[in-house]
Amino acid sequence: MTITLKDVAERAGVSRSAVSRTFTKGASVSARTRARVEAAARELGYCPNVLARGLTTGRTRLIGLVSDNFTNPYFLQIFDRFTIGLQEAGLRPLLVNLSGALDAAAALRMLRQYSVDGVIVASSTLPPDFAGAFRGAGLPVIHAFGWSSATPPTALAGIDNVAAGRLAARTLLARGYRRLGFLGGPPEAQTTRDRLQGLRADLEGAPGATLSVSHARAYSHAAGQAEMARLLGQGTPAEAYFCGDDVIAIGALAAVRAAGLSVPGDIGLLGLNDMEMAGWDNIALTTIRQPLEAIVAAAIDLVRERIDRPDTGQSTRLFAPEIVERATLRRTR
Amino acid sequence: MTITLKDVAERAGVSRSAVSRTFTKGASVSARTRARVEAAARELGYCPNVLARGLTTGRTRLIGLVSDNFTNPYFLQIFDRFTIGLQEAGLRPLLVNLSGALDAAAALRMLRQYSVDGVIVASSTLPPDFAGAFRGAGLPVIHAFGWSSATPPTALAGIDNVAAGRLAARTLLARGYRRLGFLGGPPEAQTTRDRLQGLRADLEGAPGATLSVSHARAYSHAAGQAEMARLLGQGTPAEAYFCGDDVIAIGALAAVRAAGLSVPGDIGLLGLNDMEMAGWDNIALTTIRQPLEAIVAAAIDLVRERIDRPDTGQSTRLFAPEIVERATLRRTR
Repeated sequence: MTITLKDVAERAGVSRSAVSRTFTKGASVSARTRARVEAAARELGYCPNVLARGLTTGRTRLIGLVSDNFTNPYFLQIFDRFTIGLQEAGLRPLLVNLSGALDAAAALRMLRQYSVDGVIVASSTLPPDFAGAFRGAGLPVIHAFGWSSATPPTALAGIDNVAAGRLAARTLLARGYRRLGFLGGPPEAQTTRDRLQGLRADLEGAPGATLSVSHARAYSHAAGQAEMARLLGQGTPAEAYFCGDDVIAIGALAAVRAAGLSVPGDIGLLGLNDMEMAGWDNIALTTIRQPLEAIVAAAIDLVRERIDRPDTGQSTRLFAPEIVERATLRRTR
Repeated sequence: MTITLKDVAERAGVSRSAVSRTFTKGASVSARTRARVEAAARELGYCPNVLARGLTTGRTRLIGLVSDNFTNPYFLQIFDRFTIGLQEAGLRPLLVNLSGALDAAAALRMLRQYSVDGVIVASSTLPPDFAGAFRGAGLPVIHAFGWSSATPPTALAGIDNVAAGRLAARTLLARGYRRLGFLGGPPEAQTTRDRLQGLRADLEGAPGATLSVSHARAYSHAAGQAEMARLLGQGTPAEAYFCGDDVIAIGALAAVRAAGLSVPGDIGLLGLNDMEMAGWDNIALTTIRQPLEAIVAAAIDLVRERIDRPDTGQSTRLFAPEIVERATLRRTR
């Protein structure tokens, strides 16, 4: 029972072309014809088919929202903001889940088939060249919540992960911690590498500071818990750990408590993201905040800019990370 | 730089119609022409445009995935399974977030504009008649993780919420609890009402059993915590609470601990869903499991069935809830 352009044309007593022109931005149509077409469309409940219109305008208003972080609760908050933000901009997210075996080439093929106007890669683990593959294929693309670079091959929105690592180092030193640990995300993730690089940079030269480095196999609770349990089983743990992100830190917290130790009495923990759960009373994680809403808004801006003007140069919108004080690090002394 | 059907026709030295027929299931084309077209398509990297093809076949393979539960971490698991399952079936989820002000009529208008083949409503809070609006407009629709009914106006997939309430009553009574509480989700949600109805039904006639009823204002951690804090502030709490779902129960757990009480020493808590966090060590929630993967698979089956045969009658795929024993209820005595 779909109402078609033909139905509207018959009701309005005009040509199909006149109906089409009425609903095409910038097309020429007389005021009288427009009024008749709009009245007929209203009466029939006609919705101009955006996809069909896409064949002539070259726009579908579909945006591929590509992610592989479906086990990290932070990403529900990210999907929430992206869907709301895209809807408000009259765009629609086609959600692509790369947690399975789908690779960049397969995702690219799929999104081209679906004629998306642009792609937002929202991932802390997909490699920098993943978004590059879309750009190489001529699709406007932006990578959010991933790596950062001053000279990126694609547009980026996120925090400066090196700066986040530096902030972690300064924070832990200021609290009197000296034997430090990095309990990072997967070592192949650029976010993990950048955070470690910043941490190392600001620990250099700090009197008495040492750093042990290990990695959870994923940004997940189970992976953080398993890696911390392994560290505790090995003997002397660090005095405090900068964790790859909040969900790893919350997993590590569970392992510390399960071993009969206390946080921050025996071991300090510092997260990254400030996801909702970090603020739950029985977790109360001290963490480094990513300004989620600002990053999402910047990512949507960047992709729209590149849809409107495909020759727009690449740029990076980086936001400053900041400490959120809760209860898993001892206070400054 | 999009490769078009015309490019393929020229390379293969055949008509555009021949190319179109090659990529249309069931269309007639000679083996020789097919081979030439397929070779040319391979050489050029041509992807038949699914949306353009949709104009002739009437199919876009887009599925509207509509939800309003973006603050409940359980729904990240649900979105994960739905996106993977739809991708495996060659379908694509257009994610629609109704957490904001968007109503049924607006969502319907939007999804018709985008020519989705069908709609999956995944929500524990949207009312039964919400999915009905899509069905009324001739769109294949299925409501998952919502209410249950033997004679539904739309196809349904989920657990029998009344049975879940009965199971909760039997479980709590068997553990020796008599002064029971229901700390439900929002009172207007049919899932909440059904669970309460089942709980009441199986408490009737149990010697000495009493029931107090209250509601969190949302299926969220903050709402569960606030409502439990209010109950504790009022005086004598119940011996054990059947909570609206896991995230409410985990919020309630935080409130009980913040009040200096212990679980299950002072108060027992029973959740519903068995979301990932229920199994985290520092939570260890005893809960009633919804078989998430089975419900998602059934929902995808049901919507595909209705896309293929729009006159398929309505049906319900209900799954049995089951207890998952952890550490927030005392053992049977």
